[in-house]
This record gives sequence, C-alpha cells and structure tokens, in this order.
Amino acid sequence: MRNTNRRVTLAARPSGYPKTSDFALVEDAIPEPGPGQVLVRNHYLSLDPYMRGRMNDVKSYVPPVQIGETMVGATAGEVTQSNAPGVAVGDFVSVPGGWQDYSIASAGEAFKLDPDAAPISTGLGALGMPGMTAYFGLLDLGQPKPGDTVFVSAASGAVGAVVGQIAKMAGCRAVGSAGSDAKVAYVLDELGFDAAINYKTADLGAAIDAACPDGIDVYFDNVGGAITDAVFERMNMWGRVSVCGQISQYNLTQEDLGPRNLRFSLVNRINIRGFIVFDFMARYGEARSRLTRWYQEGKLKILEDVTDGLENAPTELIGLLQGDNFGKKLIRIVNE
Amino acid sequence: MRNTNRRVTLAARPSGYPKTSDFALVEDAIPEPGPGQVLVRNHYLSLDPYMRGRMNDVKSYVPPVQIGETMVGATAGEVTQSNAPGVAVGDFVSVPGGWQDYSIASAGEAFKLDPDAAPISTGLGALGMPGMTAYFGLLDLGQPKPGDTVFVSAASGAVGAVVGQIAKMAGCRAVGSAGSDAKVAYVLDELGFDAAINYKTADLGAAIDAACPDGIDVYFDNVGGAITDAVFERMNMWGRVSVCGQISQYNLTQEDLGPRNLRFSLVNRINIRGFIVFDFMARYGEARSRLTRWYQEGKLKILEDVTDGLENAPTELIGLLQGDNFGKKLIRIVNE
Repeated sequence: MRNTNRRVTLAARPSGYPKTSDFALVEDAIPEPGPGQVLVRNHYLSLDPYMRGRMNDVKSYVPPVQIGETMVGATAGEVTQSNAPGVAVGDFVSVPGGWQDYSIASAGEAFKLDPDAAPISTGLGALGMPGMTAYFGLLDLGQPKPGDTVFVSAASGAVGAVVGQIAKMAGCRAVGSAGSDAKVAYVLDELGFDAAINYKTADLGAAIDAACPDGIDVYFDNVGGAITDAVFERMNMWGRVSVCGQISQYNLTQEDLGPRNLRFSLVNRINIRGFIVFDFMARYGEARSRLTRWYQEGKLKILEDVTDGLENAPTELIGLLQGDNFGKKLIRIVNE
Repeated sequence: MRNTNRRVTLAARPSGYPKTSDFALVEDAIPEPGPGQVLVRNHYLSLDPYMRGRMNDVKSYVPPVQIGETMVGATAGEVTQSNAPGVAVGDFVSVPGGWQDYSIASAGEAFKLDPDAAPISTGLGALGMPGMTAYFGLLDLGQPKPGDTVFVSAASGAVGAVVGQIAKMAGCRAVGSAGSDAKVAYVLDELGFDAAINYKTADLGAAIDAACPDGIDVYFDNVGGAITDAVFERMNMWGRVSVCGQISQYNLTQEDLGPRNLRFSLVNRINIRGFIVFDFMARYGEARSRLTRWYQEGKLKILEDVTDGLENAPTELIGLLQGDNFGKKLIRIVNE
C-alpha cells in the first residue's frame, strides 16, 4: 500500500478537447479523516462525460473545478480509517472521491457496496450513477409504454446500455446509435437491442427510418448534434425526449449550428426535459435495488472498459470524450 | 344580403411567403344545411399564423387544405337557417366556417356567442381560440408562480397579449418582444407588461438581460428563431417553455440554422412542451368563462386589427405572416 497520495489536478482550462497538459499529477501526504469522516483507499475511478463541463469556468449545476484542485469524480474503494459510526474499516463504499489514491468522505457521502452482490466497480456504472441516470431518465421522464419505440444515442455507453436493456424489459422496441460496427454488434447481440445504427457511417435519416418503422416515441439523448436532429424529425405525436447529455457539444471551440427543432415539438406535442440524476436523490434506493436485482437475475448485462493506473486518467478521459471507450470507462487504481 | 356565396380557395401551394396568386376567389350558390346542420352568415373571419401550415402538403395534426378547397379558418356570424335542435335562427355562433360568406356547420361545431357579453368578434380572439391558447399554454404548461418572470414572443399578437395579461394577474413579471416601437409601447402602456423589447432593433441579449434581471422562468414561444435562441440562454433552473408557434420558421424556403439549444435544457432541467389548443378541448368552457369574466372586469384588454372585405383576406394573411398586424387580425365580411 502507498504511503503517499497521488492526485490528478486541473492544471489549465481546456479549449476544445482537453490535452494531457491540462492535468497535473501531484503527490502529497495521505489525508487524515476528521470527526464523522472516513478515509477511503480508492480501487476504481469512474470517468464520465460530465467531467468535461466541470473543467470550464462557467455556471452550471455545481461549481467548476478550480485550477490546482483535484479533478472530481466518483470512486469505489475500501475504508481504511473510520471516524464515522456505521462505517467500518474494511467496508467497501462509493464516494465522490476525486482522481486520487485516497479520499476523505463524510459518512453521508459514502454509499456501501456489497462485493458479494456485485463487483464493486459496478457501483460506479450500471448499479451506480450511470445506471440510475438511465433508470430515472427513461422510466420517469420517458414514460415508456409497451410497444413504444425507444431510441438511445451512445447506446453502448455506461448510460445508454442500461437504457436499452430497461426499455426491452418494459416491452419496448429498443434502438440505439453508436460509433463503431463493434459497438453496434454488441448492443444487438449481447444487449438485445432490436436495431442499432453506426452513426459515423450510416445515412442517418434512412437508417433511422429503417430501424424505427413506427417512428420514435421516446428519445433518450446522450449526444446531441446530428443524430438528435435526425431523431427529432421522426418523433411520434406525444413523444418524450430525455435530455441526459450532449457530448457532441462539450468540446466545441466554435458554435455548432443545427436545424431549429422546436417546430417538431410543436406539432407533435413533444415533451423535452433535461435532467440531472441528483434530481432523483430521494429515490436512489429504489433504483439501486432494482438495478442490482436485474443484474443478479441476468437481465442487466454490464460491460466495463478498464484501464490500469491513476496516471492514465487524463488520456482515458480524452478518449472517452472522443468515443474511444467500449462500455463503462473505469480507471483501476489498485489491482489486488 | 348576398344571394351567392363567395369563397377564397387555395389555388397553388406557396413556396416561402404566400402570394395573392396562391388564392382564388370563387362564387357559387349559398349551400343548404342538411339534417342537424345550420347555415351561418359569417360576419368575421379570423386570420391566424397556423393557416400557413395548412397550405403545405405535409403531415400535421390535421390534413392540409387541398388545391381548390376553401381555405380553413374560424368565423363568427349569425345563424340564418337551422336544422339543429338547440340552435335558433338569429343566434350568433363561432364555427370552423372557412374563408367564405356562408358556412354550413353541425350543431356540435357551433359555439354560441353572447353579443351582450362581448362583441362577437372577440369570440375569434381573446375570448376564443387565441385566448384559450394563451390560457392553457401559460397556466397549464408554463405553471407560473408569483414572482416568476414570464417572457412571451409576439407579445402584442392575439395570443401574446393575453399571455402577458394573464401573467400579470398571476403575480408574475411580464416581459415581451414585438416587432415595432408602437407595439412595444402598447404592451407596456396599455397591457401593463413590465418590460418589452423591439426585437427588430434591439441587441437581443443585452435587451433581455436588462428586461429580465432575474432570468426567465417561463417562456411562451410564438415565434422561434433568434429571439428563442436568446431566451434559452437566459432560462432559469427548472424553467418551462410552452411552444405555441414558430412563425419565424413558417415561410422559409431554405433551412434556417441556429445554435443547438438542448444543452440549456440539460443543465437547467428546462421542460419544453409543444401543444395545440385542441389538446384542452375538454376544458374550453373553463377557459372561455374565465376569459370572458376578465374581459368584463376590465382585466383583459383586447386590441383588434380589422380589415373589411373577404376579398382582402389573402393580402391580410400575407401581412400577418410578416408581422404587419397590430392586434388580433380579423376580416369583417359584413358590416352592419
């Protein structure tokens, strides 16, 4: 075990895609937990698209990371010191730990993970925030009904893969877009999607028409941009759009113009809603227990894309923002 | 009284703004009402932006007008023959009468107007469809709370003027955009808006910032395009957008690109909903009675822009689509 704490900090605010020089790896003493706090030795760090937004100095739902601060992110690890009643040394937890070896968290921030129920890494993906994002964004905002066509962009990603599988459980036709033939094959053959499109090579309009012969009732949007434009034109009356992410827009250095889509919402009475998983915090227990049950029953398949070494987190985040990951992107900080 | 029926028909499908040659004035016999039907002598014809969409041969919420068919539209007039129980000769009604002197309607299509409660022309405007569109789009979709800032585009128009006045009654800050200094002065001085912007001359972003120092909670969009782009950037967390019209988009001959606005909906959890007043048909009685009461109490002011002569309807619709009207646009077919 390390006797120092390595941290990846924000060294510079990126313009466009981040560069590795926008991050710095620093090393200092392992922090000491205060009263009511625990020290967590992080095994896994989750990399997620929202992190790009936190690197900008703009108003958002949470403050941005400041220059020199540790990059934010969820981690899963083992409690090595505890000053918090109810959390014991040896417990596995997920915490908002940041990009570092060791994290301090309050007991309220630590969610206990049961390594007998599922590998702790899944608490950062399908059984954690990304899975809950899919759960609430599809079921609460999307309101899928049996027979509906549900279209999800970034279908093989941490959120999209769960959206499609829940859509199938809900009796819907699940259709997705992804950025490679291998990803398309994966969501079709492994996750049971009814149709999928390689958005990089397909004629989007024709491909969606073929994949969605009855139009689209629910659109779960992780991506924005051209795929969203093509989907909006094909939404059915009373359709619902869950705006979860707009990853195609996060690294632009100049404004990306597109067709004005509100006219589709007017005639077809589309309900478009943006959301953040935090909005459903009061119901995390419901989502986690159901996702875990589905996983244990074999109804929810999980694909992780794991890279070893905290020092590789910057490169891997950059790759994630370009769609290089295949499944939920994780950094394994310790491998034992 | 005429002993023939003049009708304005669709002669050609327009590209871009309609031309007068896209319409034809034909004259034939006054139709005879069948069983359960009434004959209405139309006094007023309502001109509304939605009519442009009905001239296109595209799928929408209702079938398009076919070439040679009478242009659709609401009329208000007097029943001159009745084969319908409950409707008497001499009753004033509004009906989906079309652009013509005389219309046949079933009893179920005829809504009785009380000329003692309000001039029958108001049954086509603030106390009819446009007023009810404002009522449901603001109160049901917009969910305004006291202290909210409500922004409405086309603020001096048939719908927008009612939106702003209801917003004031609901304890909100009412802000609008309109296309001339005279319209801006009207909504400020006569309708009691708190602020208004001439969208043709203002620096939109700066003007909205000044008019909405606390941001925008509810956006009632009649217009789309640049004003909508500027408003979306200034929507508050949990804001609501009622998409009622997109008149800036109805006469385009090539696609109008704009900034991709969904990113604002994501972070701020904006709820964007398109609607058609028909969706609220079951509650028309509630809306009409409340709008009428507000009018009688002097809380709802009505401005009508009346042009005499059915033959002028094409020119006046073209003007309406270009924002030439000042208040609810009506054609007075008979003046007695």
